[in-house]
Amino acid sequence: MQILMMSPASISLEIKMMGQELITSRQNLTVKNVIKLKQKKNRDREKQFILEGNKLFMEAEAWNVAITAVYVTPQWIEGAEEAVKSAFKRLKDMGIPVFTVDASVFEAMSALKMPEGILCTADKFDTSEKFFEKKCKKNGKKCLSYVILDDVQDPGNVGTIIRTADAAGFDGIICSSKTADIYNEKVLRGAMGSVFHLPVLQTCALEETVLFLKEQGTRIIGTSLQGKTSLSASLAAQKAVGIILGNESKGMSKCIADLCDDLYKLPMYGHAESLNVSVAAGILMYDIARAMHE
Amino acid sequence: MQILMMSPASISLEIKMMGQELITSRQNLTVKNVIKLKQKKNRDREKQFILEGNKLFMEAEAWNVAITAVYVTPQWIEGAEEAVKSAFKRLKDMGIPVFTVDASVFEAMSALKMPEGILCTADKFDTSEKFFEKKCKKNGKKCLSYVILDDVQDPGNVGTIIRTADAAGFDGIICSSKTADIYNEKVLRGAMGSVFHLPVLQTCALEETVLFLKEQGTRIIGTSLQGKTSLSASLAAQKAVGIILGNESKGMSKCIADLCDDLYKLPMYGHAESLNVSVAAGILMYDIARAMHE
Repeated sequence: MQILMMSPASISLEIKMMGQELITSRQNLTVKNVIKLKQKKNRDREKQFILEGNKLFMEAEAWNVAITAVYVTPQWIEGAEEAVKSAFKRLKDMGIPVFTVDASVFEAMSALKMPEGILCTADKFDTSEKFFEKKCKKNGKKCLSYVILDDVQDPGNVGTIIRTADAAGFDGIICSSKTADIYNEKVLRGAMGSVFHLPVLQTCALEETVLFLKEQGTRIIGTSLQGKTSLSASLAAQKAVGIILGNESKGMSKCIADLCDDLYKLPMYGHAESLNVSVAAGILMYDIARAMHE
Repeated sequence: MQILMMSPASISLEIKMMGQELITSRQNLTVKNVIKLKQKKNRDREKQFILEGNKLFMEAEAWNVAITAVYVTPQWIEGAEEAVKSAFKRLKDMGIPVFTVDASVFEAMSALKMPEGILCTADKFDTSEKFFEKKCKKNGKKCLSYVILDDVQDPGNVGTIIRTADAAGFDGIICSSKTADIYNEKVLRGAMGSVFHLPVLQTCALEETVLFLKEQGTRIIGTSLQGKTSLSASLAAQKAVGIILGNESKGMSKCIADLCDDLYKLPMYGHAESLNVSVAAGILMYDIARAMHE
């Protein structure tokens, strides 16, 4: 409440109290290093990514994402809601570096059309097989369920699928190497924070991973326009279920399709030939979720 | 086949045979008039819209959309697939004007990052209440089903919802005046041609329309985060069903929510608080479609 009522003079005092001068140049080295993280190759090299906006910031703080620095504009400091400011203060108190940048510099760092004035850098998550297995098992449920993305390329689709997987209570996401990078800002925005707590496995060997899951007793359901509109076995009776979504234009790759226990296609009642991949994923995930919770 | 094997010299001959010189200036009046149609206010004034790319062109031709002119690049003439070229020839034979424009001019007309080299102008559809009622009734089915969009703003969401409504066999789309324009290029692209045959009603008086549908015996199901996770009546037993999707951030407006027979919310099994509106719409539409086709 205090900050909200501060005069412009006391706001700049607050900024100074952060131990920071206002950054006003896009040539500032810290700023340039953040901008570099917009590119996947630099994220891969630095093992860091950017998360932006109040909603993602709140989720990241709540899920203990390893935030390495926070960048805010003076306008954000002035206008942010109390809940966001509290999260901000908690991070500051933990010693996370805070930088104040002017609006024009922030715009260069931002990926949004209407920047909200807060952005963080954070350490990438552990997306290794070992960690994935541990984290998925920890949930201790009877039946595990996975979403497997076989080269789903559009970051909006990948983000939406991750958000839906979270809503449907799925246990983990498995991504092929050509699937849109989970640290892409559109994926993060579409997933609305679900990527901060849902285990993700990134693999260069999707076939091997699917084979491994099958050996563990996972029923693998592929989605394909050549599939049947019904499944051959009850969903509720499975030990574990994995659904595979393929590339937006090419569908699943042949070697992955060959591994599927079922090839499923949603019935088309009208004239449309197919559904958007994130919608099809949503319908199928809720079919599975409901069967498991009945 | 003939055109595909033509030499560059015979391609330019083919262009000349269309009775057209190659348009090479963005200042060309016809080109400028097309570019104007990118804005809603100009589409409203001219009662025309743009549709772009091979897929939409094929769908528009197949569904007898009133195409008023076709614009292609010499590269498109050279490389297009036979099926698309046949559709193109049919339109040409019907006397639809064809203009050949060079790649740089086409780029200025195009809304795509990677323009395919074909674009049309067309007359807007009849989206009046009278026509909607007539067209919906014509399907002659026992149970009608509608999707009602109460200020759904993102054109990608609106396009995806229309495509899904088509796939799920829904009979019509009703759009409030603040819902994304169905002639927006992202809506057209997301709907993948479904908007060319699915009846659409655009209304400035959504409340009245919903009231009218209720009077006709339509069960109105609203989607709301405050809703229940089950419906109070069997979907299959209804005479007609209308589902309402609200604005991405604000949800349904209060006066529309007050008209609903049911307020429905998909169960959240994980940590996500909500679903993307086009995913929620897809799950609910398939619930209804399956109940009606059982």
